[in-house]
Amino acid sequence: MERVGLLGTGIVGRTLAARLAELGVDVVVGARSAESSSLEAFADLDVRTGSFADAAAHADLVVNATNGVNSTAVLESIGAEALAGKTVVDLSNELVPREGGGFPVPTATAESSVGRRLQEAFPETYVVKSLNTMNCAVMADPSIVPGDHVVFLSGDDAGAKDRVRELLATFGWRPEQMVDLGGIETASATEMMMSVWMAVTIARGHDAPRFNWAVNAP
Amino acid sequence: MERVGLLGTGIVGRTLAARLAELGVDVVVGARSAESSSLEAFADLDVRTGSFADAAAHADLVVNATNGVNSTAVLESIGAEALAGKTVVDLSNELVPREGGGFPVPTATAESSVGRRLQEAFPETYVVKSLNTMNCAVMADPSIVPGDHVVFLSGDDAGAKDRVRELLATFGWRPEQMVDLGGIETASATEMMMSVWMAVTIARGHDAPRFNWAVNAP
Repeated sequence: MERVGLLGTGIVGRTLAARLAELGVDVVVGARSAESSSLEAFADLDVRTGSFADAAAHADLVVNATNGVNSTAVLESIGAEALAGKTVVDLSNELVPREGGGFPVPTATAESSVGRRLQEAFPETYVVKSLNTMNCAVMADPSIVPGDHVVFLSGDDAGAKDRVRELLATFGWRPEQMVDLGGIETASATEMMMSVWMAVTIARGHDAPRFNWAVNAP
Repeated sequence: MERVGLLGTGIVGRTLAARLAELGVDVVVGARSAESSSLEAFADLDVRTGSFADAAAHADLVVNATNGVNSTAVLESIGAEALAGKTVVDLSNELVPREGGGFPVPTATAESSVGRRLQEAFPETYVVKSLNTMNCAVMADPSIVPGDHVVFLSGDDAGAKDRVRELLATFGWRPEQMVDLGGIETASATEMMMSVWMAVTIARGHDAPRFNWAVNAP
């Protein structure tokens, strides 16, 4: 994995940018504008920064680490033409505030997901849902969790999935940890896991988000 | 665990009845009527059979192994008075057919679940959601899957959860495999896992449902 365009400047973007830079990958991190103050948090890393469009133009593999609430608008700001033929790894989850407080609520249903909506909105782009079922520290370095815990892939294009597997391998994921669930419609299944992810995080308490799902079988 | 009332005569009911009988538990399996033809499938087991009400009357611990689509009606047929003070372990998932075919769709959302609806409909009964995130062969004998795979518990009453832990231990679940997620509202989280459960089952292919989730952590 030589070059990655990374969309998003939150904790997920920051964690992945730091890890990719450490691994020698040539990264451009994109924000709403190349002058966005959110990009200051990347000044100490060996990455370049720019607009969302700058990040997307940098590589054939684009990582969507924006909030799922904004992801469609972010890709629209880049434009379908600029994204045509590229692979977008979609890490996002869409959460909305719960009435009366408490943990936010995932909007995904069996019929609807951010991943599927992005694929439908950008038919000439290869959207692959992945890495959205874990904390970003685990995404970036799976060796922090023991055993054969898993990362799911959902997407319609086999070649795009291979490019995502290459990114995953760069982070340290082993092939036997990568579970291909099928087409992009299966992004619903993993986005719906956000509810149980939050429930387990609360139940675990201390150092809570540093876990991942495994599929144990005989 | 001495006595269990078991509601439901499908594959889940049959599997659990066989296992409980083998373990020496005194079981009454309930169906819509004591003369229901579905009870013939239990004739070779060391259990008694009867109506749903007969099964509920038999024990303080009642296992709901009916289809989630019917569970409210089944409990209503028994009646709130007969169920008052009892613990109902709710194993159900509610799935509806998908338009145009394909795997059915779970109806659970972050705000709605079968477990929570049952608790709201029967406030004097202790509903504990559990075992609904795996195939019934794994429910009944967790030793068929290696490692520290997990069973979740959601419910509002600590004493009722202890009775369910006792049932789980009877099946062979170890305490460290039991993950208490909190109140009955967290049943949403595990019922929403049915989508990813089905996706993983399809992806696994051969001997597909014989797996379970683990929560790997440092």
